[in-house]
Amino acid sequence: MNIKKLIREEVLRQEAYSAPEIPCRIKLDANESPYDLPASLKSKIFESIKKLSLNRYPEPGSPELRAGFAKLYGIDDDMLIIGNGSDELIQALLIAVKGQNSGVVIPVPTFAMYKISAFNTGHRIIEVPLDNQFDLDVESMLEIITTESPELIFLSYPNNPTGNCFDAGRIEAIIKESDGIVVVDEAYFNFSGKTFLPYLNKYENFVILRSLSKVGLAAMRIGILIGSPPLVHELNKVRLPYNLNALSQVAARLYIENEEEFRKQSDNIVSRREELFNELNKIDKIHPYTSDANFILFHCSFDTDSIYYFLIKSGILIKNFNATGVLKNCMRVTAGSHEENEEFLEALRNIVLGEELKTK
Amino acid sequence: MNIKKLIREEVLRQEAYSAPEIPCRIKLDANESPYDLPASLKSKIFESIKKLSLNRYPEPGSPELRAGFAKLYGIDDDMLIIGNGSDELIQALLIAVKGQNSGVVIPVPTFAMYKISAFNTGHRIIEVPLDNQFDLDVESMLEIITTESPELIFLSYPNNPTGNCFDAGRIEAIIKESDGIVVVDEAYFNFSGKTFLPYLNKYENFVILRSLSKVGLAAMRIGILIGSPPLVHELNKVRLPYNLNALSQVAARLYIENEEEFRKQSDNIVSRREELFNELNKIDKIHPYTSDANFILFHCSFDTDSIYYFLIKSGILIKNFNATGVLKNCMRVTAGSHEENEEFLEALRNIVLGEELKTK
Repeated sequence: MNIKKLIREEVLRQEAYSAPEIPCRIKLDANESPYDLPASLKSKIFESIKKLSLNRYPEPGSPELRAGFAKLYGIDDDMLIIGNGSDELIQALLIAVKGQNSGVVIPVPTFAMYKISAFNTGHRIIEVPLDNQFDLDVESMLEIITTESPELIFLSYPNNPTGNCFDAGRIEAIIKESDGIVVVDEAYFNFSGKTFLPYLNKYENFVILRSLSKVGLAAMRIGILIGSPPLVHELNKVRLPYNLNALSQVAARLYIENEEEFRKQSDNIVSRREELFNELNKIDKIHPYTSDANFILFHCSFDTDSIYYFLIKSGILIKNFNATGVLKNCMRVTAGSHEENEEFLEALRNIVLGEELKTK
Repeated sequence: MNIKKLIREEVLRQEAYSAPEIPCRIKLDANESPYDLPASLKSKIFESIKKLSLNRYPEPGSPELRAGFAKLYGIDDDMLIIGNGSDELIQALLIAVKGQNSGVVIPVPTFAMYKISAFNTGHRIIEVPLDNQFDLDVESMLEIITTESPELIFLSYPNNPTGNCFDAGRIEAIIKESDGIVVVDEAYFNFSGKTFLPYLNKYENFVILRSLSKVGLAAMRIGILIGSPPLVHELNKVRLPYNLNALSQVAARLYIENEEEFRKQSDNIVSRREELFNELNKIDKIHPYTSDANFILFHCSFDTDSIYYFLIKSGILIKNFNATGVLKNCMRVTAGSHEENEEFLEALRNIVLGEELKTK
């Protein structure tokens, strides 16, 4: 039997999301927090986890977390869904919306999972390149809204991998004109401080995504969707009933109770990012872009593959795009601890120096 | 804006999966193991969890678990996908297969999530009632295979909530004739001892589902899909990259290393189920059906609502179906510990006695 005959065309055609597991001493490729939790907080989490009965199902719908995040965000708890990472919430949106053929609008470049999941769930994909400031091409997007009525528009705020927040006025114009749902993905909110939360009172056709993956709990897979109660009600029918395991629910509860501690770590990461930017900026042939996130995109005036492999040899992993278009010769580095950033910078300086010698 | 205009018809029309959270002292409604893990094993799990860096993403694709389960099952590790519960794997299958309009065949009654997820993902649903022995109506199913070419057929083995294993010959006939994928859901394998694993060499168009939820790790959400390498390869493209959190990966690893311990608990539950069956059988007006799982379906010759609420008042929760058809006046009780079963039986006897007095 030919298995391929049983599988949808879109699935057959695409490659799986690749997250290469190259073991490196210093991991600056995945936008994780470089800091493990403070020992006191970590032991609080483990003490609470120890009290769980592992033989019992987790609470369906994570009601305690919904109440906790609602309080934190100053909204009602019927405006929240907690997911097994934002990935699951993105997929739920794609499954729930009507009109697979109208189109899902995705800026280019942006977070890879929007396109992968939209493709897998049978949506038509409309890619709109960012302008040369890495901002939204709002004219093109508004025109697509008028002519195609896309069912979903994904906007990462700040955008991954470019690091910038799109102009808020442009995003609002898109939400205002859209007949479909606009997703404002604030996965990196803790580093930008910028949010569309206040707009929730004004528009019903948009949702905000948040995540605990960038602020120190990537291991637990906790994503948050915020939207109008009628929209959340419908999306909840698509969410799998026991989607968030009991241990992650405990960890998220302790995040809520100790948000101040986590915020201090995020603030620290913002300082590390600024340091990193300033140092990158001093290196000849390296051009870093300003960032509102916990990573920095930088352009190199020579081939990035040699940098990538040289860094791996030094035990340092960053993200290489091997891309054409605006990301040609670009790489992305996560802001690590002071020491990690220093090691990375030192290695990068050596490579650039080596390249210079080669050219001479 | 009318949010309902944005949502697919199927999602609008359906109710979310309901798992009522009625706090009861004795929980016999959800087919969980009544036993927490042995203290030594539990502390092993927590010691391993403590070593995790919570700030780092889990390993994508759970390679260590795939290798471990492959060894346990005597198969290759490219025949396995680990999911955030079987629910996620069921959804992945429904997203990946071609032909949403041919139909998904589901016996009635069976596990509720097949229908809910098939409906949400836009499939046409073809329900085929079980025969009066709770076995598959194989003639009808083979006819549907010939006339409709369904893309997926879900068979729970043993079946939830009836508790029996369908006739293996009938299942094999269905796999043999099907042009689509047949899912043999062995969530309750540890209590039945019956498996379609040996058939994997013979047929490529079927998959087996397993779960750690019934054997003591429901809190962790760990499901397993076993199928032919080309099928697994395609399904992996639909699986979300970081679908299983790091703590559940640790727990599953310790399950693999200590399978013997878990098996002892499962064997114990089988003995409890047999005790429970024998005692139910002695109660006038109660007719239990033989079971290969960790629960028992029983028929009452009077209204089940009164039993349900009386039991809740006594602090005991079981599953009430409020159903018509074959499940009319039926309830499902999970095999609990000896003491839990005794309390349940005592309460049930009292209700039946009360009903008898009322009739007299």
